[in-house]
Amino acid sequence: MSNTILAGHDFIRDTWYMVAWPEEISADKPLARTVLGDDLVLFRTPNGQPVVLEDRCAHRLAPLSLGRIEEGGIRCMYHGVKFGPTGQCVEIPAQPQGHPNMCVRRYPVVEQSGFIWAWMGNPDNADPTRIIAAPWAHDSRWAPSKGYLHVHAHMSLVADNLLDFGHLPFVHTNTVGAAQQADFSTQVTALTEGVQTDRWYLDVPASRFHQSVGRFTGNVDAWHCFRWHLPAVMSLDSGSAPTGTGAREKPHGTREGAVEFHHIAALTPQDADHTHYFWIHWRNFDVENPDMTDSVHRNVMAAFAEDQAMVEAQHRSVRRGSQTVPKAIMADKALTIVRHQLAKQSTSVD
Amino acid sequence: MSNTILAGHDFIRDTWYMVAWPEEISADKPLARTVLGDDLVLFRTPNGQPVVLEDRCAHRLAPLSLGRIEEGGIRCMYHGVKFGPTGQCVEIPAQPQGHPNMCVRRYPVVEQSGFIWAWMGNPDNADPTRIIAAPWAHDSRWAPSKGYLHVHAHMSLVADNLLDFGHLPFVHTNTVGAAQQADFSTQVTALTEGVQTDRWYLDVPASRFHQSVGRFTGNVDAWHCFRWHLPAVMSLDSGSAPTGTGAREKPHGTREGAVEFHHIAALTPQDADHTHYFWIHWRNFDVENPDMTDSVHRNVMAAFAEDQAMVEAQHRSVRRGSQTVPKAIMADKALTIVRHQLAKQSTSVD
Amino acid sequence: MSNTILAGHDFIRDTWYMVAWPEEISADKPLARTVLGDDLVLFRTPNGQPVVLEDRCAHRLAPLSLGRIEEGGIRCMYHGVKFGPTGQCVEIPAQPQGHPNMCVRRYPVVEQSGFIWAWMGNPDNADPTRIIAAPWAHDSRWAPSKGYLHVHAHMSLVADNLLDFGHLPFVHTNTVGAAQQADFSTQVTALTEGVQTDRWYLDVPASRFHQSVGRFTGNVDAWHCFRWHLPAVMSLDSGSAPTGTGAREKPHGTREGAVEFHHIAALTPQDADHTHYFWIHWRNFDVENPDMTDSVHRNVMAAFAEDQAMVEAQHRSVRRGSQTVPKAIMADKALTIVRHQLAKQSTSVD
Repeated sequence: MSNTILAGHDFIRDTWYMVAWPEEISADKPLARTVLGDDLVLFRTPNGQPVVLEDRCAHRLAPLSLGRIEEGGIRCMYHGVKFGPTGQCVEIPAQPQGHPNMCVRRYPVVEQSGFIWAWMGNPDNADPTRIIAAPWAHDSRWAPSKGYLHVHAHMSLVADNLLDFGHLPFVHTNTVGAAQQADFSTQVTALTEGVQTDRWYLDVPASRFHQSVGRFTGNVDAWHCFRWHLPAVMSLDSGSAPTGTGAREKPHGTREGAVEFHHIAALTPQDADHTHYFWIHWRNFDVENPDMTDSVHRNVMAAFAEDQAMVEAQHRSVRRGSQTVPKAIMADKALTIVRHQLAKQSTSVD
Repeated sequence: MSNTILAGHDFIRDTWYMVAWPEEISADKPLARTVLGDDLVLFRTPNGQPVVLEDRCAHRLAPLSLGRIEEGGIRCMYHGVKFGPTGQCVEIPAQPQGHPNMCVRRYPVVEQSGFIWAWMGNPDNADPTRIIAAPWAHDSRWAPSKGYLHVHAHMSLVADNLLDFGHLPFVHTNTVGAAQQADFSTQVTALTEGVQTDRWYLDVPASRFHQSVGRFTGNVDAWHCFRWHLPAVMSLDSGSAPTGTGAREKPHGTREGAVEFHHIAALTPQDADHTHYFWIHWRNFDVENPDMTDSVHRNVMAAFAEDQAMVEAQHRSVRRGSQTVPKAIMADKALTIVRHQLAKQSTSVD
Repeated sequence: MSNTILAGHDFIRDTWYMVAWPEEISADKPLARTVLGDDLVLFRTPNGQPVVLEDRCAHRLAPLSLGRIEEGGIRCMYHGVKFGPTGQCVEIPAQPQGHPNMCVRRYPVVEQSGFIWAWMGNPDNADPTRIIAAPWAHDSRWAPSKGYLHVHAHMSLVADNLLDFGHLPFVHTNTVGAAQQADFSTQVTALTEGVQTDRWYLDVPASRFHQSVGRFTGNVDAWHCFRWHLPAVMSLDSGSAPTGTGAREKPHGTREGAVEFHHIAALTPQDADHTHYFWIHWRNFDVENPDMTDSVHRNVMAAFAEDQAMVEAQHRSVRRGSQTVPKAIMADKALTIVRHQLAKQSTSVD
């Protein structure tokens, strides 16, 4: 079955998924979004707390996202049944005693580091400390650019694309891949729930962009290191520092005079054929300059557009089916590790 | 299964469904229409009799609706096989002896009260006396407005919407629902094959529209009473009369000086995801005035458009599936009665 | 089952299908095309040889048609894996030893008579001598017009349409069918793998078009004879010659002073709902005149457009399903023979 490239795991539910930008949800108007096939309605209570409920009235299944937010609850605008922020029914028109057994499913939700995270599994297991840390979000020395892609492909194909460097010189021939054509000396380390990938280029001329913002007087040590967190959050650390100033020393070296980026990419399955792709890219230079913020946004999106076109074509090809069984090559090491971990988790959970 | 909101019965076949407006069918050009999943072709014989056949040539299944009406029969324009109004093959080109066993399915059809009614089940059971009466159609003291909606929803959800008053203050907040927000004192009576629903507002000021056409000098007794005929025809009687003039007396009171409407809504399933919705709204005032006819049409369609948006959203929500089991509230009384009746009929028929 | 009109055989694989025009494929840019449900990529080697491979990289199933043709091979532009014209993997980036077991399926391919033919079944059985001969393609006394239709219908319905003359007076009432209304004296002869159909009109006035190009001084003998080659290639011989000059003598008569056409129609299933329809129409007059070439093209396409509309309507009708079982009439003789032959082949192959 060619679909082994997609199978191997159902989506993991007991985890935090990035589901919306903070500014997308409010106490004025509900937001509808589908995650892991579940239709969600998102809004805020009057004091700003985010709420995530199933987007179906427990009475006749009309979408609550067509409803009205009222004092922290949401009223279905078909027959007026109202639910509180926990999903419990709090009012049925012309039926004063209410309906104690009527409720809609609620999903634990946390707003953190510029993302809205929802827990899609058993609420009893929802542990906010498991949400990935992003200290740059709370540090004025770092400036974020951010973006969203709606990818018509299975989440695992989007994840593969982020996990492998082998595609850089081919998908990105004319953009970011050009300089990296020759080098595949990536160090891949399996973690308990994910993988660590490190690429270092020691004592090399700075890339054109890094040179333009870092104004280095000599060669640099450049790096491109990421940590993958199961199922699908990537935290990337990249940059250039003057050669020999210790950038490579663990954990971070000194990074004196370095141009640095931190990037978080959060992949959230909409369903088996669509993926929400949220990313934030922080930089440590020119942090007050909105033009630089825009420029970083455009560059990241341009590279991702190249990936998206290929991943969507791959998805269509896989979905159409074939006798051909995919075969791994050496460059697949990181994605193979992650897929094995996911397959194992999925088995133990289901 | 959330789909219990749709299940409970297959569509009942042994009944009359409204399938077309009289002016839609002619002896010149066949009309294609799908009803209960059956593809139909409709036309008239030279003397005006309506004919309903399956829209498939018995030879190679080409649509007869692409064919040519000839002397009361219809000729398939693929290979020229011709069928009479009973569906019997009457001519095969270059095959003079014909083909006695070749025929297409015919459906009993009756033109009555401004509707074309077809019997979708066993023709032997087709009893024209079971077609709902609409005396206003034949009485010049009444003037009709009429309209059609193609609703992308299961017929049972459209029926629910007509059967319940609970949605009025919410779906129609800004239109017909505004004045009725406080009142749910509806009397619901189960009939043998349907339900009777009565709402009376005694000694109240007339609504703005009723006042404008009725020019009442004092308060009115207003009513909104309908009878539901299984599976899906509603006959509505509504209006306002001067208070105390006996409008509420059975069967009709005197209705002296009253503003009155009679409305027939006929729901016809196209298939499990689409519904034909035909309606005629007769009034007893200003019957010669085409502007009033248009105005009534616009007002009815504006209210129905609000219902349609909600019902279609509900349909999509139900179709996407969910763990959530819908729960009834008190306002569901009439629709619950009708759904039970339909479930019972369906069981005894299948 | 109404679908018996489509069933009776899966598509035959061990045969040559016309898959592309020669000018559609090159050594510069790959062409994607789906045939019998298989996604193909077509290109040429530097010396012009056509190559047909499955359009899926054996590594991660990305489409090779998004790839780059390099020295007779094709490189997947996702991760750079390269395949030779036999489908064998010849290079994996950063993995010098290659991957001997990695290959994509190749399809035997022959360029002949102005068509690219691919063998969709077992390559061991691919015998180029079984490709239909078309000597007019290599003879400067004949000038071709050609065209392509993408038909949204099952191949067998398109084949039926070509195999039966019964539809001419009905589908083509206003074009080619007008003159032939009265005549069904077609001689149908079963062959080992196909059928021969002959229609002769002896000593009749020439059709308007034949008269305009043939400038006959008296009546003509006209003919319309075709041979059907299983599964779906038609070779048609038609024309008009002065009466009594021996045109009807076998095999060809003298055809002195005749207006003649040879036509090849090649039907290639894209999948069960779409058919590629390629045709070339050669004439023996005015062969240097591009206006005549255009005129023939327009006339053929106009007639085919009438067939296409009906066949696509028939296909939709069949796909929607019905209780109605199609019944054969006398005019179905040729198509009935071919369908029986296909059903038998299919059984013996599967």
